[in-house]
Amino acid sequence: MPKPVSSVLPVVLLGCGGVGRHLLHHIVSCRPLHAKQGVAIRVVGVGDSSSLLVADDVHSSGFDDALLTNICAAKSAGSPLSSLLGQGPCQLFKKPEANGKVIDTATVLGRSSGLVLVDCSATYDTVGLLKGAVDHGCCVVLANKKPLTGAYEDFEKLVSNFRRIRFESTVGAGLPVIASVTRIIASGDPISRIVGSLSGTLGYVMSELEDGKKISEIVKTAKSLGYTEPDPRDDLGGMDVARKGLILARLLGQRISMEDINVESLYPSELGPDAMSTNDFLESGVVQLDKSMEERVRAASLKGNVLRYVCEIGTAGCQVGLRELPKDSPLGRLRGSDNVVEVYSRCYESSPLVIQGAGAGNDTTAAGVLADILDLQDLFQKTA
Amino acid sequence: MPKPVSSVLPVVLLGCGGVGRHLLHHIVSCRPLHAKQGVAIRVVGVGDSSSLLVADDVHSSGFDDALLTNICAAKSAGSPLSSLLGQGPCQLFKKPEANGKVIDTATVLGRSSGLVLVDCSATYDTVGLLKGAVDHGCCVVLANKKPLTGAYEDFEKLVSNFRRIRFESTVGAGLPVIASVTRIIASGDPISRIVGSLSGTLGYVMSELEDGKKISEIVKTAKSLGYTEPDPRDDLGGMDVARKGLILARLLGQRISMEDINVESLYPSELGPDAMSTNDFLESGVVQLDKSMEERVRAASLKGNVLRYVCEIGTAGCQVGLRELPKDSPLGRLRGSDNVVEVYSRCYESSPLVIQGAGAGNDTTAAGVLADILDLQDLFQKTA
Ligand SMILES: NC(=O)c1ccc[n+]([C@@H]2O[C@H](COP(=O)([O-])OP(=O)(O)OC[C@H]3O[C@@H](n4cnc5c(N)ncnc54)[C@H](OP(=O)(O)O)[C@@H]3O)[C@@H](O)[C@H]2O)c1
Ligand SMILES: NC(=O)c1ccc[n+]([C@@H]2O[C@H](COP(=O)([O-])OP(=O)(O)OC[C@H]3O[C@@H](n4cnc5c(N)ncnc54)[C@H](OP(=O)(O)O)[C@@H]3O)[C@@H](O)[C@H]2O)c1
Repeated sequence: MPKPVSSVLPVVLLGCGGVGRHLLHHIVSCRPLHAKQGVAIRVVGVGDSSSLLVADDVHSSGFDDALLTNICAAKSAGSPLSSLLGQGPCQLFKKPEANGKVIDTATVLGRSSGLVLVDCSATYDTVGLLKGAVDHGCCVVLANKKPLTGAYEDFEKLVSNFRRIRFESTVGAGLPVIASVTRIIASGDPISRIVGSLSGTLGYVMSELEDGKKISEIVKTAKSLGYTEPDPRDDLGGMDVARKGLILARLLGQRISMEDINVESLYPSELGPDAMSTNDFLESGVVQLDKSMEERVRAASLKGNVLRYVCEIGTAGCQVGLRELPKDSPLGRLRGSDNVVEVYSRCYESSPLVIQGAGAGNDTTAAGVLADILDLQDLFQKTA
Repeated sequence: MPKPVSSVLPVVLLGCGGVGRHLLHHIVSCRPLHAKQGVAIRVVGVGDSSSLLVADDVHSSGFDDALLTNICAAKSAGSPLSSLLGQGPCQLFKKPEANGKVIDTATVLGRSSGLVLVDCSATYDTVGLLKGAVDHGCCVVLANKKPLTGAYEDFEKLVSNFRRIRFESTVGAGLPVIASVTRIIASGDPISRIVGSLSGTLGYVMSELEDGKKISEIVKTAKSLGYTEPDPRDDLGGMDVARKGLILARLLGQRISMEDINVESLYPSELGPDAMSTNDFLESGVVQLDKSMEERVRAASLKGNVLRYVCEIGTAGCQVGLRELPKDSPLGRLRGSDNVVEVYSRCYESSPLVIQGAGAGNDTTAAGVLADILDLQDLFQKTA
């Protein structure tokens, strides 16, 4: 059998939190597997909120595995990237010089070996770097939703060469939602509707409500189990779900923005962050939601329905909020924190395409990012 | 915005039945969409069981859309490919010369513009052509399971350059099963188990049995509705499911063959094709299965379970047959003819990744083939 030629993918990683560190770990542990598949990933830069560690020679084979492992250990212990200096042929750039160095690297590698700029940060601030990288012919992979959910022009720019961008983990973490929707679109099967439960936290809340618990108790338990954001209102407000909905809507070709999405928050503004602290919300605020939620759950149940917090993308744009759904639908059957997405199209008309599974977690999110990187391999130079 | 460069994909299609014709139809109707995406498919040859119609100049822009439409119309009316001669600059080759012409085309185009050899036939006979195409650096896309389920060496040869082959529609038609499993494997997330209901016909049979109907009545109704193969025993025997299981098992790296798969047939050999005709089976054979099936359904139901015909791939190989499953599992909840696949891995450990939807039909199968062809586009020459 002929030895397969191998592709080499240089990577700069922005963001070295839970997801970024898992990605570096997966890259290291998959080396033998990827070698067998004829592909090699070389990490030539890693950035966080304050600085960028970059290989002295970005044309080199990149950081060695010991350095990558040490980056993970240091960042997870709360040490700065500067603590890694001297552990390999690399340099440190502080912000804002760090940003210039990312663009330099994109310029140097974009049109020669190619470069994948991977965004595992959680900020809008990377969008300029990502657009710059696209301008220089680089590829972009995102777990970070924010660059895709800002101005429409930014989205348009980032996807202008659609073969060079991947963003699977922005919706449903590693679940193959974006890849599947992209396949359906490419095959000319027009998607008429996508409905999904895209928040593990809200999925958990809804299924506990169905079991008769009070929302105040559910939220407090979820917070203590680490299922929620530090301020649970970041989940209950629905903005994170709306961002995922916007990405799907834009993928379907809708020229809309966050302000066009109708988002139903599970708490009123009187209980919002401007009105009270997280602690006050947990101690005296959330309990004020118990009665009305109980009534909505009961009203739904009287009709044989259940209440779900869903994101719905149709021809009329994107809506996010509570819906009464038949107990016996894929969304109605959902229990616990799994995500589920139903896609309706000509081929999936009466019975939708359903994709379901864990839609959060550093491991699966990073696995999705890694699969995205590898999916770009045909664009990279092959060596015999 | 920079105009995206475009990829041109020359295609030779083997098999012009229900799926092949739908594929040609989709290719024609998607031209504007694909042009926007910067990709163009040019069909330079179409073959059936007796001959091959091929463009005079395979470097040309291929058959025009009028000819492609006429090919579909002629084949669907039962006319031979020879009836198309004179409708464009093309030639006809009869078998066995037709096979030589396929290889010639693969030789000429494989190392220049590239070629995608698409197999929408239903025979083992194409395997030699497919292997030849691989040898010449061509890409291969299959809806036909047979070339992947013969000798292990054939499979190994066909997937030897894994980036150049796609076979989504061999399992679950257009459902993104193979693509999703491939992503999970590439990300280093080891798959421990796949369980699926991979036959729409048997899914229908099982859900009707659950509703208390007799298997003899169900099979006769299904046959009259066109849900089964001409001889329903081709569905009831489980071999088609076993072929899908074998493809999944081989994808997971198992070096196994059909004879290693434990397949439970729903009818005993006394009721098989060697013992009686299709008509006799329908009139006096299948009724002999009523009592034992009724008992199995009842036994399952007493334990709160339902009976499903499943394919299970684990570390111990592949098993195909009836299983009692909790009513409340993704497989147990399945109704009607949808396929469903559960994938268990490190990331999907307690709760599997579930993919569900229509797993048969010419439209969705052809859409899956088309998505596969487009997924190869980065391997093809770009024109500015
Ligand atoms: N975890 C999940 O289940 C999941 C699922 C789907 C999607 N995602 C998305 O994945 C992304 C990463 O999530 P996470 O849980 O890993 O977040 P995280 O733990 O908060 O990590 C964020 C990282 O980004 C860095 N960062 C902040 N600003 C930056 C900048 N301007 N340039 C470069 N890096 C910057 C942070 O730097 P410091 O280390 O200096 O703070 C930190 O390393 C988020 O966008 C999240 O929404 C996560
Ligand atoms: N339909 C579905 O729902 C579905 C779903 C998943 C997968 N598939 C697979 O897709 C494939 C096509 O299905 P189909 O329903 O379109 O089958 P079909 O209607 O029976 O068509 C088969 C086609 O293959 C041609 N053929 C036979 N031997 C050939 C050979 N040696 N070389 C080239 N062509 C040859 C036949 O030629 P003639 O026209 O001369 O007879 C016919 O055009 C099958 O392998 C099937 O298992 C189908």
